[in-house]
Amino acid sequence: MRATVIHGAGDVRVETVPDPVLHRPTDALVRVVRACICGSDLWPYGSMPDSGTGRRIGHEFLGVIEDIGSEVKGFARGDLVVAPFVWSDGSCDFCREGLHTSCRHGGLWGRDGIDGGQGEAVRVPQAQGTLVKLPVIADPALLSSLLTLSDVFPTGHHCAVKAGVGPRTTVTVIGDGAVGLCAVLAARRLGAERIILMGRHTDRTDLGVEFGATDVVAERGQAGIERVRELTGGDGTHAVLECVGLAPAIETALAVARDGGVVSRVGAPQYSQVPMDSGSFMRNITLTGGVAPARAYIGELLPDILDGRLQPGRVFDRTVDLDGVPDGYREMAERKALKVLIAP
Amino acid sequence: MRATVIHGAGDVRVETVPDPVLHRPTDALVRVVRACICGSDLWPYGSMPDSGTGRRIGHEFLGVIEDIGSEVKGFARGDLVVAPFVWSDGSCDFCREGLHTSCRHGGLWGRDGIDGGQGEAVRVPQAQGTLVKLPVIADPALLSSLLTLSDVFPTGHHCAVKAGVGPRTTVTVIGDGAVGLCAVLAARRLGAERIILMGRHTDRTDLGVEFGATDVVAERGQAGIERVRELTGGDGTHAVLECVGLAPAIETALAVARDGGVVSRVGAPQYSQVPMDSGSFMRNITLTGGVAPARAYIGELLPDILDGRLQPGRVFDRTVDLDGVPDGYREMAERKALKVLIAP
Repeated sequence: MRATVIHGAGDVRVETVPDPVLHRPTDALVRVVRACICGSDLWPYGSMPDSGTGRRIGHEFLGVIEDIGSEVKGFARGDLVVAPFVWSDGSCDFCREGLHTSCRHGGLWGRDGIDGGQGEAVRVPQAQGTLVKLPVIADPALLSSLLTLSDVFPTGHHCAVKAGVGPRTTVTVIGDGAVGLCAVLAARRLGAERIILMGRHTDRTDLGVEFGATDVVAERGQAGIERVRELTGGDGTHAVLECVGLAPAIETALAVARDGGVVSRVGAPQYSQVPMDSGSFMRNITLTGGVAPARAYIGELLPDILDGRLQPGRVFDRTVDLDGVPDGYREMAERKALKVLIAP
Repeated sequence: MRATVIHGAGDVRVETVPDPVLHRPTDALVRVVRACICGSDLWPYGSMPDSGTGRRIGHEFLGVIEDIGSEVKGFARGDLVVAPFVWSDGSCDFCREGLHTSCRHGGLWGRDGIDGGQGEAVRVPQAQGTLVKLPVIADPALLSSLLTLSDVFPTGHHCAVKAGVGPRTTVTVIGDGAVGLCAVLAARRLGAERIILMGRHTDRTDLGVEFGATDVVAERGQAGIERVRELTGGDGTHAVLECVGLAPAIETALAVARDGGVVSRVGAPQYSQVPMDSGSFMRNITLTGGVAPARAYIGELLPDILDGRLQPGRVFDRTVDLDGVPDGYREMAERKALKVLIAP
């Protein structure tokens, strides 16, 4: 089959790789119907050292079960399924607690002999715990929103949940990428009273407003901090959803949190230290968040997508086939595309 | 009157200062019956630059109301009262939310013309919001435990509350100082299943065991981390209560937190950065805590002290009069005393 392989910074290729087959009775084979490129794929795309052999990439996909191991219960060939961006057994203590990203028998796509999602098919380990059956025949109009259940929408949702967003919560969302926009959607869904979106790409912040942002702050750094404070009577907001992952973003996040407030981060950290000094200590600021256990949230988020109430799939503004994947990376890296959908 | 003045590192003196008088109708005058020296007083004692005039110090005291402003309701001369370590109006939005340390009209003792607690008397601003009446005649046997309501016991309690300690929670407490021991007591009171106390002073950890610690780890650094992991099947604990405030303590705290767990800090940070990098992100570690709004907790903690169930006052192992305060600082700084009680 053909699949995406990253060889180094800026070097993504679509290559012929071995067809996946079942290795274990807990595996399933999924023919990919939709996949996509994640903002976090841009980190290795930007900086991965040249590799002799390359490695498979992509961790968001939905598709149809083509073959299935004898120990995988509750699924059948032909089922439409979505895979969260971490595979997990669904039965260990961490999975039972809803922290599937720390599963004792789970792992990441594209590592250690596991297929990546940006290809024609994927061998899914721990398929019974990992996959979620979608109760629809593949309706093309819904597929893009359903695909967001793999990562970007649950990631925004995790960010908002860990921040304790609910009615009467004021929220700042930092970042107008796909995760930031999904965080807006999730905060609105949880009833946030006010959502200030910090971002400077008007096409993106416009979608943010449609998703529920009540204010947009285009300024960055100190000017952005001052603008959020100005909008909130000098106080900042109860919750700050940090959806970027760079040091200036986490610094801004801490500065715009109201005393006693929560900074929740889902942007993969490109920093090693957080300035949680005596200032944030005296203000009782909490820093939470982390990699989202998407699997834990799919069941809760799915109905709102199936009935059309929420359309997180609107974050996709470009669709490519497999051959177009290298172009898709380039366009996302150059910020010409917000998020690229792959229809193999 | 006489009160404690700190002039610089290692230079604490008891001096004659102006007698306090009511300035505003919201003030009260409290004759100090018990005060004490806080671990956090040792930071300026260790490093404060020499000052021309010195500044008043001490933020934990209980005493008897001697005079009272016309706008202070609910109190009368002769009442025994305890003061939390931050004064606050009790009526602003932050106070109503239980975050009295962020009160819009509050402040710290010993700053900006406000008396410190380590003296014969104190003018208490915002007395109605700040003071808590104690429903007892000053019983010497209870006074030391009642005094801990000023700071050290609510600080340990805040640490445990912010960490979400409850039944079925496993807890690591870092630090065998008075705050660490009170954190053990608070975690036990909240029903923690297991409490691992990290500390290497056996006289202190022995008291920690009496307060409810189930395990003691004397090792520090990497050896301490490994020992806690060993005790917890490799996982670490749900909650980690960081009661020191130094960089190695917060690093240890992050390392012994179970995936999805919470590090709660109440040790005043002597660091400016926290290594909340991609490791803690992938493990969904939360960092919370901060300066404790003691005022918010006194009502809840008081009954357990009045009925003798809890005796946080056992952290005091030395009593001095006002003249003995400089000795008390020295003994605490040299770790000859755990916590020094002052009976003026």
